[in-house]
Amino acid sequence: MIDLRSDTVTKPSEKMRKAMYEAEVGDDVYGEDPTVNKLEEIAAEILGKEAALFVTSGTQGNQIAGLVHCKPGEEVILEAQSHIFLYEAAAMSAFAGVQTKTLAGDRGAMKPSDVEAALREDDVHEPETGLICLENTHNKAGGAVIPLENMEAIYQIAKRHGIPVHLDGARLFNASVASGIPVKKFAEQTDTVQICLSKGLGAPAGSIIAGSSAFISKARKWRKRLGGGLRQVGVLAAPGIIALQENAGRLQEDHESAKRLAEGLQNIKGITLESEVETNIIIINIAHSNKTTAAFLSELKENGVLAGEFGPHLIRFVTNNSVTETDIDQVLLVIQKILHFQPIS
Amino acid sequence: MIDLRSDTVTKPSEKMRKAMYEAEVGDDVYGEDPTVNKLEEIAAEILGKEAALFVTSGTQGNQIAGLVHCKPGEEVILEAQSHIFLYEAAAMSAFAGVQTKTLAGDRGAMKPSDVEAALREDDVHEPETGLICLENTHNKAGGAVIPLENMEAIYQIAKRHGIPVHLDGARLFNASVASGIPVKKFAEQTDTVQICLSKGLGAPAGSIIAGSSAFISKARKWRKRLGGGLRQVGVLAAPGIIALQENAGRLQEDHESAKRLAEGLQNIKGITLESEVETNIIIINIAHSNKTTAAFLSELKENGVLAGEFGPHLIRFVTNNSVTETDIDQVLLVIQKILHFQPIS
Amino acid sequence: MIDLRSDTVTKPSEKMRKAMYEAEVGDDVYGEDPTVNKLEEIAAEILGKEAALFVTSGTQGNQIAGLVHCKPGEEVILEAQSHIFLYEAAAMSAFAGVQTKTLAGDRGAMKPSDVEAALREDDVHEPETGLICLENTHNKAGGAVIPLENMEAIYQIAKRHGIPVHLDGARLFNASVASGIPVKKFAEQTDTVQICLSKGLGAPAGSIIAGSSAFISKARKWRKRLGGGLRQVGVLAAPGIIALQENAGRLQEDHESAKRLAEGLQNIKGITLESEVETNIIIINIAHSNKTTAAFLSELKENGVLAGEFGPHLIRFVTNNSVTETDIDQVLLVIQKILHFQPIS
Amino acid sequence: MIDLRSDTVTKPSEKMRKAMYEAEVGDDVYGEDPTVNKLEEIAAEILGKEAALFVTSGTQGNQIAGLVHCKPGEEVILEAQSHIFLYEAAAMSAFAGVQTKTLAGDRGAMKPSDVEAALREDDVHEPETGLICLENTHNKAGGAVIPLENMEAIYQIAKRHGIPVHLDGARLFNASVASGIPVKKFAEQTDTVQICLSKGLGAPAGSIIAGSSAFISKARKWRKRLGGGLRQVGVLAAPGIIALQENAGRLQEDHESAKRLAEGLQNIKGITLESEVETNIIIINIAHSNKTTAAFLSELKENGVLAGEFGPHLIRFVTNNSVTETDIDQVLLVIQKILHFQPIS
Repeated sequence: MIDLRSDTVTKPSEKMRKAMYEAEVGDDVYGEDPTVNKLEEIAAEILGKEAALFVTSGTQGNQIAGLVHCKPGEEVILEAQSHIFLYEAAAMSAFAGVQTKTLAGDRGAMKPSDVEAALREDDVHEPETGLICLENTHNKAGGAVIPLENMEAIYQIAKRHGIPVHLDGARLFNASVASGIPVKKFAEQTDTVQICLSKGLGAPAGSIIAGSSAFISKARKWRKRLGGGLRQVGVLAAPGIIALQENAGRLQEDHESAKRLAEGLQNIKGITLESEVETNIIIINIAHSNKTTAAFLSELKENGVLAGEFGPHLIRFVTNNSVTETDIDQVLLVIQKILHFQPIS
Repeated sequence: MIDLRSDTVTKPSEKMRKAMYEAEVGDDVYGEDPTVNKLEEIAAEILGKEAALFVTSGTQGNQIAGLVHCKPGEEVILEAQSHIFLYEAAAMSAFAGVQTKTLAGDRGAMKPSDVEAALREDDVHEPETGLICLENTHNKAGGAVIPLENMEAIYQIAKRHGIPVHLDGARLFNASVASGIPVKKFAEQTDTVQICLSKGLGAPAGSIIAGSSAFISKARKWRKRLGGGLRQVGVLAAPGIIALQENAGRLQEDHESAKRLAEGLQNIKGITLESEVETNIIIINIAHSNKTTAAFLSELKENGVLAGEFGPHLIRFVTNNSVTETDIDQVLLVIQKILHFQPIS
Repeated sequence: MIDLRSDTVTKPSEKMRKAMYEAEVGDDVYGEDPTVNKLEEIAAEILGKEAALFVTSGTQGNQIAGLVHCKPGEEVILEAQSHIFLYEAAAMSAFAGVQTKTLAGDRGAMKPSDVEAALREDDVHEPETGLICLENTHNKAGGAVIPLENMEAIYQIAKRHGIPVHLDGARLFNASVASGIPVKKFAEQTDTVQICLSKGLGAPAGSIIAGSSAFISKARKWRKRLGGGLRQVGVLAAPGIIALQENAGRLQEDHESAKRLAEGLQNIKGITLESEVETNIIIINIAHSNKTTAAFLSELKENGVLAGEFGPHLIRFVTNNSVTETDIDQVLLVIQKILHFQPIS
Repeated sequence: MIDLRSDTVTKPSEKMRKAMYEAEVGDDVYGEDPTVNKLEEIAAEILGKEAALFVTSGTQGNQIAGLVHCKPGEEVILEAQSHIFLYEAAAMSAFAGVQTKTLAGDRGAMKPSDVEAALREDDVHEPETGLICLENTHNKAGGAVIPLENMEAIYQIAKRHGIPVHLDGARLFNASVASGIPVKKFAEQTDTVQICLSKGLGAPAGSIIAGSSAFISKARKWRKRLGGGLRQVGVLAAPGIIALQENAGRLQEDHESAKRLAEGLQNIKGITLESEVETNIIIINIAHSNKTTAAFLSELKENGVLAGEFGPHLIRFVTNNSVTETDIDQVLLVIQKILHFQPIS
């Protein structure tokens, strides 16, 4: 099977498995796991923040941001197609008690003037604006890189109004590799940032939330409440260190695979690219292909290829470290076969 | 002062004051206030619901709907400019723990197909859709009447998916008077409905939430938690009965005043009507008047007229039972004076 | 019927009804109701706090205290039989997201050393202690007056640890009348205090929450979220002013009625007083009377007397302004009849 | 260092590390991790429940129970010294919005009659009782085994009233080994049960929550919201399987070590055992030793022994798989030295 459903499907490498096997561990709830401590130091350094905390998932990192930054009854501004709004099962409203105010972005980037206009006034009828969330790269916009200047402009507004900014940087390293801008530069335009070790970076699980020391101290207690305080979790931190230190570079390969796939796809009749391909995500529209989404995915699967539904007529492919150049060519062949020889389905 | 800021500013009539004075009362927390009981029966009858409950405000009624219908982590669909989303200080997320999913409507009416498309799937990443909220008339859309067919279409979808529908009918009687459709017909297209006694109907305070008996039984406990369980509150229910039984008819006068005001306004240079005037709300845009909103409102006030800011360049007037035909003409004179003789401000 | 179920059952006096009838009103959501403003000024003055806010019930006032003082995940210390813990339907946990830590008191008074021992440590496993709640007089302890020194000792501890103290003073005027200590002296030992206008003070509905100006400013928004922002609510504030200014004195009569009833009761075989009677609440134990609680209450009712169940074998009587000396004697006759002539039930 | 602070400090065995290294993995968010699926099947089988779910910690399992079983504004009955109440940072109130009603137990076991008396009535002032939580073995009661009959009696009451029962069985295998009763028998007296893989069972991290299939289906979404949905988490499930299948037996050794330690301790002057030692936890009281808790722990540490503070004058030791018989004897020697040769500290 060629699995292009997500970059979360990647399995840990031999080196990562060895690191787990050998990991020096301790009880991280007591702050005594040396491998976790090392990972957190490295992550804080790379992200240019005072402190960092290992969390079990990107969702957990994002939720902690909401819980620490906000009080119930506040409003959070976020892009209308953001992961926090679409795919975290409304957790931020459930736990932090905040209302979501969504703004439609351009390739995932909210207009700074829209953000400023969305800030609430000091009025008994209105919630306080408690947080602004960004997402870079932006998943639903097809792995789009949010330009650094966009983030800067929003951060200036936020600071002027005393409102914190959180970055869902689940795929921030993809943004960095695609733009040539260090992750630290992006993180600088935020108060807190979450990055995933388990997507293109290839670790089996885990994310990092980073920010000021005061923020991380509160984050630690919320992580405990969420059940993210683990014991000898150095066994997960060890591959996380490899992910951070060695795998950021290899994302370039995923981006090249994605471009190769995109170029092939746009020559196939019945398929349109839904958006420009900047990183490792390709979204296609098959509305003109005479196939339903379900049939298309099912025939792909019969032919050894896995992809994901991403809305009506939309299919998402995510390149990742398990996918070779040959795989990409094979995927293209399969799709051509499905769409043009059109077996009766 | 001619007060057009809202229909909430109306003061109780002599008859209402007399009703308060004479009200037979009891302890409503024990269900023993005969005047409250009578009001609730009348309201249930008018709205065509099994049961009704007196609440202290429209916000309280709407919040109770969220608390009874939803569980934390669910999503509520509502119009992007609805009162619940804009002006209840994010209370539904704070208390019921639900995420708000807003849809832009046409004059306050969400497209049924948009509502259906917004329903969430059965997926671990997605919140369950827990409630659909409508608002009729729609305040921010300028007192627009949501057509009955629109409500029917949405309710059909909701029932098919097992999702409850709540109507914020703070000004439902205005919709009824303007359309000639009984409130009961509108309420029929919902599971629960909230109406305000204290806007155009003129009671000093109070609203009604109505629905099934099972709903009202749970609503009673949530009202207690919210602090809306009062004692000898028959003193508020008494004018509420007059509001319901006698004042619905007089809303026609407010609508006529509004039309008279709107007609006059559209002949004044520098002013455009922001939306068609169907009921008692007029929203004008003064972007082309060379006045800031603040200056315009302040000069109005100096000249004995109160109105409200309603967004950048937008001014809202709401006609109500304290405003006569002569008042309307006076308001028009004042605005003409302000805009055309342009005193240095 | 002689109604001794609660002092909440009292109906507004002729003078209060007249005040409602004549009340000068405005829109209190805009801060323009002169009668409400006057009530809030008077209340702040009497309680010795910077500011006060009219709320629709004692529960609403207490809940606002929790919402303003606390963040979710904190712990509130309160007496094990307090009204907030027993009779507010768990609202403080539902809305403010706080855990309740109960301490058994002596006649409602928590031992200061117990309070200090209950404060939580700075540890990732433990919630922060966010609030200490007191209740004076203490309902469940039979209207017991919490001694001023007890409140002082607890407040000293709280201040030392930077933890706010809230007083549920629903019957604080009873404590004041019984002890001869001005309410202001009690309120001084707290950050915020809630008093009810609708119990012994006789207003039809309403309470006051008082504290610093900063607190009241936040309280105003939480009141709006709870649905306690009303319009021409001067009609309730007007009798509230009478309650505050004229009715505190008359609580002495309720206390005398209570003593008269208690003295009579302790001479009736089968009845024991559950606790000393200091104010207007009498709790008796009928375990040795050969009557079930239900039968006892039902026979009282058949004989024109209403009282309330207050736990296994416990009956509560609350004297109030509708009860005369003659009524008390009648109640005693009825109880003697019920217990000693023992009609087959 | 001989580490007796907790059984959470145990490091994964060589066999567990090898299992991690070799674990067959997949994306567990898609339900495709074969090792996780295997662990969940084994756990469900051992616990006699329809289904089981891997969670990252005991706290997460307990919180999910609260979130699935309860609605906000309900009350949870639990023992006054239970882990959920004391050491989960008030998360159940923060997330599930429930009030905690604590009952003092006898060696951690609540009296069934107390539980029944604590159930709330159907009254608008009272929260519904939404859940009863038990803990077996009971940590704060010194690893006490809650007798099966106690659990049965409580479960009968709960079922009669339609209230679910959740068991915090973080150390349920210790209860089983000490009593000779299979874990399944204990779990049978509950609706849901949480067990830890990372305490005496020795896995590096992770717990299991088990119950009906309907419960687990909802639990899966709440786990996602809490951030406990991980990707290739088979690397943690693999040692979890060893923990469950092979390590339950070895808890007997921990119990023997604990008995050996307890016997030695009770012969040391100045030390009293705080409670009977049934499993792997020993709590001693050093009030009569002339040492402060801090000094005692610090001197232990200087002498190569780690233990934990557990309240005023209380020290907790937890035996675990890193501790040998020789270690125990060494600990006793150190304590004797500290208390009797009393070096100046």
